[in-house]
Amino acid sequence: MPQQPRIIETSDLSTSEARWVSLQKIDYIDQDGTKRTWEVASRKTRGASGIDAVAIGTILLHPSRPPSTILVLQYRPPVDATTVEWPAGLIDATETPEQAAIRELKEETGYEGHILSVSPTISSDPGMTSANMQLAMVQVELKERDKAPEQMLDEGEHIQLVIVPLEELYEKLLSYSKQEGMLISAKLFHWAAGLHFAKNTLGTLKADS
Amino acid sequence: MPQQPRIIETSDLSTSEARWVSLQKIDYIDQDGTKRTWEVASRKTRGASGIDAVAIGTILLHPSRPPSTILVLQYRPPVDATTVEWPAGLIDATETPEQAAIRELKEETGYEGHILSVSPTISSDPGMTSANMQLAMVQVELKERDKAPEQMLDEGEHIQLVIVPLEELYEKLLSYSKQEGMLISAKLFHWAAGLHFAKNTLGTLKADS
Repeated sequence: MPQQPRIIETSDLSTSEARWVSLQKIDYIDQDGTKRTWEVASRKTRGASGIDAVAIGTILLHPSRPPSTILVLQYRPPVDATTVEWPAGLIDATETPEQAAIRELKEETGYEGHILSVSPTISSDPGMTSANMQLAMVQVELKERDKAPEQMLDEGEHIQLVIVPLEELYEKLLSYSKQEGMLISAKLFHWAAGLHFAKNTLGTLKADS
Repeated sequence: MPQQPRIIETSDLSTSEARWVSLQKIDYIDQDGTKRTWEVASRKTRGASGIDAVAIGTILLHPSRPPSTILVLQYRPPVDATTVEWPAGLIDATETPEQAAIRELKEETGYEGHILSVSPTISSDPGMTSANMQLAMVQVELKERDKAPEQMLDEGEHIQLVIVPLEELYEKLLSYSKQEGMLISAKLFHWAAGLHFAKNTLGTLKADS
């Protein structure tokens, strides 16, 4: 019987004991020649691609339904909450970001798609971490009678899928946050906010002269 | 004479010695009742608001120029690169996210604006950190002959401003990345990609029937 996950204990961890994340101090010389320090958390798992992770912005096309995207809802221990994100995963040492995107989408959602575009390498939170990623936009084309596929989750993964029409995405994220207490990924929220802004605000902007 | 910043040394840091960031191990019970662990980096500076930081998506309106946004270019030690971001900053212990947004915009850019909207609290990178933020959209209205204001930077801050028309934002970010070797903030990139998708792709989507 599934139960609500709960944290038992949070304790300090040293970089030498950690498997996934390190904490380091950077000594650097700034633009004025002054010696300064900065603190940074990094992933220990970065492989040959030089890129930690890939996120998958799926565009799901169906003959009789509106264009939609696939979101994943899961408990995330770092934030002790159910998060709302696009599917994502770390890039294995031997794969390209494109291969990782297609593989992760298949594993987390069961859907098979093709790459529409891949972003440059972008920085997840450059004031605090060295973590980086690429955003892959992936198109999935369904036929009228296609059934929802089966997820292929690793043992211990608990991921709920939701399919949301793109036209409703921004409002749906606000509702997940405000009504259901979920925590929205900043990256997904920004994409949805950009889409919403283009549709609702961009055309109305006008300065007073 | 300004010089290119450079890293001298990167060394492991313990959570007890760190001032800004901590590294911890979370022991938790998952949905199946299984005990698991997760590694997390957190900010040590979170104040009464419960929110680490605010980013400012500025909409700059001018009588004879297209609607634009303000980007900040700065060297970021965690990624050892010049990053392209929206202005952002940590929220002081005594202020609201709205107050922090107006203050940070004034400090980093010199511009004064008013809040259009504030996002829910969103999660910067929930697989790795507990860091969270809000996105404040801020409108700045200029008159025909207004001059560019002066930045009010703290000592040691080196931040270059660029003003980019919203219609050119996505292409400009790609150019900063590919031609100029800068590293784009994932959040800013996602907003620009959502805007670009709405304008260029959303209306053309059609499934094969």
